[in-house]
Parts: sequence; structure tokens; C-alpha cells
Amino acid sequence: MTDLRKGPLYLTNTLSRKKEEFVPIRPNHVGLYVCGPTVYSDAHLGNVRTFLAFDVLFRWLIYMGYTVRYVRNITDVGHLVDDVDHGEDKIAKRARLEQLEPMEIVQKYTNGFHDVMQLFNIRRPSIEPTATGHLIEQIEMVKRILASGNAYEANGSVYFDVEKYSTTNAYGELSGRKTEDLIANTRETEGQDEKRSPLDFAIWKKADATHLMKWPSPWSEGFPGWHLECSAMSTKYLGLTFDIHGGGMDLKFPHHECEIAQSIAADGQVPVRYWMHTNMLTVNGRKMAKSEGNGFTPEELVTGNHKLLDQGYSPMTVRFFMLQSHYAGTLDFSNAALQAAEKGLARLMSAMTTLSKLKAVNGAGDDEVDALETSCHAAMHDDLNTPVLIATLFEGVRLINSVNDGKQSLNSDALDRLKQLFNTMVFDVLGLRSEGEMINDDATLDGLVQEFIRMRATAKANKDFATSDRIRDQLISLGIVLKDTKEGTVWERA
Amino acid sequence: MTDLRKGPLYLTNTLSRKKEEFVPIRPNHVGLYVCGPTVYSDAHLGNVRTFLAFDVLFRWLIYMGYTVRYVRNITDVGHLVDDVDHGEDKIAKRARLEQLEPMEIVQKYTNGFHDVMQLFNIRRPSIEPTATGHLIEQIEMVKRILASGNAYEANGSVYFDVEKYSTTNAYGELSGRKTEDLIANTRETEGQDEKRSPLDFAIWKKADATHLMKWPSPWSEGFPGWHLECSAMSTKYLGLTFDIHGGGMDLKFPHHECEIAQSIAADGQVPVRYWMHTNMLTVNGRKMAKSEGNGFTPEELVTGNHKLLDQGYSPMTVRFFMLQSHYAGTLDFSNAALQAAEKGLARLMSAMTTLSKLKAVNGAGDDEVDALETSCHAAMHDDLNTPVLIATLFEGVRLINSVNDGKQSLNSDALDRLKQLFNTMVFDVLGLRSEGEMINDDATLDGLVQEFIRMRATAKANKDFATSDRIRDQLISLGIVLKDTKEGTVWERA
Repeated sequence: MTDLRKGPLYLTNTLSRKKEEFVPIRPNHVGLYVCGPTVYSDAHLGNVRTFLAFDVLFRWLIYMGYTVRYVRNITDVGHLVDDVDHGEDKIAKRARLEQLEPMEIVQKYTNGFHDVMQLFNIRRPSIEPTATGHLIEQIEMVKRILASGNAYEANGSVYFDVEKYSTTNAYGELSGRKTEDLIANTRETEGQDEKRSPLDFAIWKKADATHLMKWPSPWSEGFPGWHLECSAMSTKYLGLTFDIHGGGMDLKFPHHECEIAQSIAADGQVPVRYWMHTNMLTVNGRKMAKSEGNGFTPEELVTGNHKLLDQGYSPMTVRFFMLQSHYAGTLDFSNAALQAAEKGLARLMSAMTTLSKLKAVNGAGDDEVDALETSCHAAMHDDLNTPVLIATLFEGVRLINSVNDGKQSLNSDALDRLKQLFNTMVFDVLGLRSEGEMINDDATLDGLVQEFIRMRATAKANKDFATSDRIRDQLISLGIVLKDTKEGTVWERA
Repeated sequence: MTDLRKGPLYLTNTLSRKKEEFVPIRPNHVGLYVCGPTVYSDAHLGNVRTFLAFDVLFRWLIYMGYTVRYVRNITDVGHLVDDVDHGEDKIAKRARLEQLEPMEIVQKYTNGFHDVMQLFNIRRPSIEPTATGHLIEQIEMVKRILASGNAYEANGSVYFDVEKYSTTNAYGELSGRKTEDLIANTRETEGQDEKRSPLDFAIWKKADATHLMKWPSPWSEGFPGWHLECSAMSTKYLGLTFDIHGGGMDLKFPHHECEIAQSIAADGQVPVRYWMHTNMLTVNGRKMAKSEGNGFTPEELVTGNHKLLDQGYSPMTVRFFMLQSHYAGTLDFSNAALQAAEKGLARLMSAMTTLSKLKAVNGAGDDEVDALETSCHAAMHDDLNTPVLIATLFEGVRLINSVNDGKQSLNSDALDRLKQLFNTMVFDVLGLRSEGEMINDDATLDGLVQEFIRMRATAKANKDFATSDRIRDQLISLGIVLKDTKEGTVWERA
């Protein structure tokens, strides 16, 4: 345990913009918080990329021997409003069962999100708290921020006072922004009349009559501001200061900046030691965006059902493809790159099969396996450099094939360690899984049946009807029915 | 839509102990609430039986054409306490990351519960609310019960005043108990000193220092009484009076009795129109209980890994087995009964395959299909009588086999309707699914390979080594390797 798998681990900390040695607050424990999805629409590929990156971090920390508490929230406080076109009287009379129920929508998209995570073999977090499940904690936090003088009430809403907070704290430090610039660049927006400064943000909002999700509070019937939930939930489960906070880079400002301010204002402690951010997606070099028409869903990527996709790519091809880029760089989708990933994954998986059947030889040493293991560790400890890890594994593939061809040899101990290394890195750390079995089975089955079809055709051509009939009957007994059509003989399952 | 698939539907209402015609409060809508699992331990077979019964109700109501809002909660407020043996000072200093975190346990068992539900093809409810996600609603309900004079505060806890409530309401009506008898049969228990009567129950409990899950409230830092969550959540999502409330019969008293009392005391409305309860499990005629050592888990039933089980039973065998008993009767597990269900399910699924290949004949009428459909509807409308539905489907199996043997015939329209009826009843309503494909594929593949092995052995015996080598090479090209051993030729995948 104490060697923590030949670390130290270095992570790029957004706060310092540098790779820093990771030292947890409490030995052998890591507290990790990642901003989860908003469950008012389908999971998108950006979600998959971000949660995959932190899945690999989670897996790596576990591999290192840490006890990890990984918290990834569900944002289920939405902004659905009732349909007021029905007339006042009808609304008042409508029973709850006939209303649009936000939680039904929340359930649907939470289920869908979990299905997508499972599809890409992304592990479940230790705790998956919901915003609606932590209203009391959020209300208590608003009280503490008010008590410290960093917020003010206006018409039942409560706003965070950025200017006041900035007099003693560095608002903008995480995202590298200055308060003066931010003010200069802000335009007037809705609800601003209640704010003392355009930089201020709501930590509690009074709900209007049409708002469907609202709760009582000391200030109004309303709902929490959207930055608040992550502050309340991360510190509840991980402590007032915890190790790592992650998310997509679009959350750096204002969301994460506001989280820091809220925690300091409420509890006087800097909440996070290491901030990590994943980068954006592009398609053929252009930013992926709905407005560009180039944003395909995870399902479309798997089925190939989108005009920009030549074919469908299996979930593990997509996972492998994403891991071939570093999480902090942009990830560019193209058919050529995805097809290359498909081939690369097949080559890696084929090597896994070869490896499982390699035979050991007496005497030969294990220097190469040592070197491979060291390189794998070095890649991951260098800010989770999965592309380098994959490249290192392909060096291992060359070794495997060389041994298989009899050009190199490994003794029993070295072979065991090579198998262990590949199983750990490929399945546990990269989180790939074998998905070819069904497909290979079908191809194998078809190949076997086609062979029988050829034998039967030969027998028929030779007028050996006894043999051709026997083949047909044998196949039927195995649940396979042959049909002679104009295009030749086809088969189907009985 | 208006014929609602030839109803009316009759359900046994626990309140009246009679089958009553089901009439929803709002036309075409049904509000259904079922008490879900407590996620502090693994899901047990009783859970599976109860949620399967209401899954079939959910499916049947959807089949009838209703819009159903099905709410099944997760009870995640538990009673874990901190370990005080570490000494006071250490506890005070311990950071949150090192504490036992109840929500980590909640997450683990919620995941496990969902996996078990999926295993048995039990549909997800429309909303799956959690107790911790509805603390404000519960606190508000306590306030309303206090305001109506049906509860009192004592040392920071709030108790429901059963005696006071009973002066104007029929406490005990659902479970058929009388207040006098209940008092006579109650013993002194923990915390009772605060209660005015042993029948009173906590709706808010003050937490002691070791309690891990607690929230601020007007009365104390504490947690809600366990009857309260279902009252708060069912009425929040379904209205103050809703259609159907279900659960295991062990919940009838005190849980459901208390729910009724809470709703009437808080909001002056009877909350539920139809109460439905599933019955208990027995094993070889004796009540299933951990203390009896005869309580196997869902996983053990599937793997066969329990001393009372002769073998493992597939998830669909278990589902089919459970549906062969009526939900309101006891369900007795025995190897003989499970094996009979396995055979029965295989016969039904085999008939589905036969049915899919039947050919229509001109002219022949469809009286038998009409009669079958009417019988299926009648069975389900008679309090969801799934055993009778299954028996009716086996009458259909006889018809299918008779048509297949050429002894009866069906015209194209009748055949289409028979297919539609079987697909709907077997897959949509009973919720069975085909699980044999992988197994059959393997058996088929093995059968085909064995055939090649025999051909190769024949060629070898005839000294036709060209043919035997050709067969071996063909198989290798299909990814199948033959190995000659002392026990004969075996094969494996390359």
C-alpha cells in the first residue's frame, strides 16, 4: 500500500495551470466530486467524455490503492413552468395527477443517463446525490452566507454579493478573470433590477406562480440558485475542504468560481485543493454544437444514424477512441479517426487473446515486462495520459506477437506478470470490455452453416440426395432451417 | 380507448376485503403508489414478489389504455449511528471523508436493487422519490398535523396522538384492529416515556449525538418517522386522494394504517381509494425467514447456490413461477414447483416459436381466437388473476400445436390476431422475455462443430486425410480449433 503503485501522481490543477504532485488531505483516502448531468434532456457526448475522463481517474486512484469516495450529483431542479393558457380557474382546480410533473421528466432522463453510462462501461460513483434531495442543506448554506455578510435579500430572493466578497477574496482566480473586466463585459439581464451588481448571482430565487418546483424557505417559496447545490453536496459528503473537484471546462466560469466563493463565504474554508477540467468536443475540426447541426447523440454514434456518420461505432470503440486523446485536449470526431480506433481496438483485443494462449519458456528474463509496467505507470502518473498508456500497450502487443511467432521468449513468471499487466491496464484502468463475442459467434455460426450449405449443394449436384437430405435434417435438429431461394440457399433459426 | 379493453377491472380492496370495480378518480388516468425498498441491505425475494405483482398491475393498466403515474419510493433514511468507541475528541475532529457515510450505503443498495429489478424484467416506475429528497415536505406535513391538534411535541420529538385522532376517525379500519385491543397488546418500548399512549407513533424524532442522518427542524435536529415519507410523497405526486396504494401485507399495520391517519390529520382527506396487498413467501410450506435459515436471495435462486436448491433457476423461470400464483395468496417455493415452472415456460416459449411460423389457410374462422382473447381479459380483470391467464394461454398452446399438426386451421386474420394476442399477453402483460438465445446459440454452434468432428473422424477412418485436414483448416478459418485428446476430439475458440 505505502508505495501507491510507484507514484507520485501528477495532475494539472486548473488553479495553478500547472502539473502538481497529488497529495491527499488524509493518507490513503481521496474525496472526488464531479458535476453531474442536468436531467431535463438526453445525455450528450460531452457528458460521456467528461464522465469517462473522471471514470479513468476513479479507476486509477483505486488501482493505486486509495479508498475513494466519488460523488457525482444529479441536477434535478429545473425550470419548468405550468402552462398558463388554460385560464386561472382551471389551473387552481387541476389535480396533481393531471399536472406536468417535473419529477417524471427527471426520472426518465436519469434512467436514460444511467443507461448511457452503462453502455460505455463508466463505473457508478460512490454517491449520486440530487439537488432536490439537499434543499435543507442549501437553505442552511444560504443562511450562513447571509450571516457572514456576503449576500443580501431582495424581494424574497437572495443574491451573493460579489463586490463585497471581492474586497477580501480573489473572485475570478480559478478562471483567470478580473472583477473589473467582468463588470465591463456584462449586459443587463432579467431580474437584474434586484441585484446590486451585474456580477451578483442568485443563491435563492423566489418562484413566480407558474413555477412547478418550489419549496418554503425563510425568504420566499422558491428554489436554490444552480451554483449552490454542488457547494452544499460536495462539502456535506467530502468535508469543508476536499481533494479533487472536476467537470467540463464550460463549468469553470461562472459555476466553479461561484462554488469557491460560496464555500469561503459560508464556512471560511477554501473547498477544493485540485481542480480538473475536461476539454471540448469538435467534429471534423469544428466545435460540436446543436446550432451547427453537427452534434450527434451517444446513441446516434453507436447506431451510425446521423448524416455525418459513415457507420455505427461500438460503445467500446467510442471509449477507446476517446481515451486515445488526453482529457485536457480537444477531442475531434471524424469517421477516419473512429475507424482507425475500431481497428486499433480490434488489434489490442486480438493481442489479449494471443496473450492468453502464450506458452512460457524456462530461463528467459522479464526485463521487458518490467519496462512496460514502468512505462504504463509513468503514463498514468503524468496527468492520466491515456494516449501514452495506449501507445505503451501497443509496444506490449509487439512483444506478445514476437513471443507468439517464436522470435522472443518469456519465462513463466514474466508471462504471468505480462498477463496481469494487460488485464489490469486494459480492463480495470482503461475500462474496456470484450464486446466481440456475440458478433464472432454469429460470424462463426454463419461460417459453419455456409459450409454445410456448400456440402449440400455439392451432394445435390452429384445427385446424392440421401446426403443432401441428411444435411438438411441435421441442421433442422440443430435449430437451423435452410431455404432455397432464387438467390441461392439461405438459412434462419427455427 | 373508451372500451378500456373490455373491462371493467375488479381489484380486491383491502379496505372492504371485497373485489370492487376499479373506477379511477380522473377518467383515463391512474395514480399508483407502492411502498418501495429500504436500501440498507440487499433486495430480498419478498421485494421481488411484491414489485412483480405491481409491475403486472402497471402493465395491465397501460394495456387497458390508461395513463399511469406509478410512484415507488426508496426509503433511504436509516438508523446508522456513529461508532463512539473512538473517544469524544477524535469524533469531533474526524473529517467527513473518514466517517461512515450512510449515503454511500444507500447508493450501493439502490444500485443492487435496480439490478435485481432489471434481472426480473420489472419495469421502472414513473417516479422513484427518496425519503431524504422530501424532508421539507415531511416537515411541512408534521406542521399541519400539529396544527390540526392530532400530534404533540415532547423533548424535540413529535408524536401522532392516536387516541385523539380515534375520537373522530376509524384508526385500525384498514387492518381490522380495534384501538382497545391494540393498547392491551402493546408492551413498553424505548422512548415510550415521551408518548402519551403506547399506540402513538413518532412523526419527527430528535436525533441523539451519535445519529448520522439528521436535519434541522422547528422541533429539533432529527429525522422523520418512517410512516411519514410515504404520506408526503404519495400525495405530493398523485394528489391528496389518489387511486391505488400497494405494498406487502406486512405493511398493512402499522405502516399503512398510519399513512391514512397522517393524511386525514394533515389534510382532512382520505388518501387512498383502493388498497392492495401482496401475500407472503413460504419454502416447502414453511414461512420464509432468515431465522429459519430458509431465506435464499434472488441471486441464490438464480445461481442455485443455496443448500435448499437443487439447481439454479433462470430469472424468467422465477418470474413465470411467481405469476403462476395469485398475488394475494401465499407463494410456496420448492424445487419441484420451480422445475415444473421451468418446463412450463419452455413449452410456452416453444409454442411462441411455432406460432411465428404457422401458415394461414383461406376460409377458416376465428371463433377460437375470440374466445381466447375474452378469457385472457376476463382472467386479468378478475383481480389480476395471472394463474388463470397462464392456463388460458396454454389452451392457446394446444390450438397452436393443433394448427401446426394440420388438425385445425386459421385464416390470415385469425392467425394475425392470435400472434398479436400471444405477443401482448406473454411479453407486454406477463413481462416475460426470451432468454434462451445465447444458450441456444452455443448449443447450435456446438452441434454444428460436433457434426464436423464426426465427418473428420469418418474421413480419418477412411484414410481420407485430405478431407480430414480440409475440415480442420476450414474450422480454423472460422475461429474454431480442434484438439485430439484421449477422451476424443474437443474444440475451442481461437
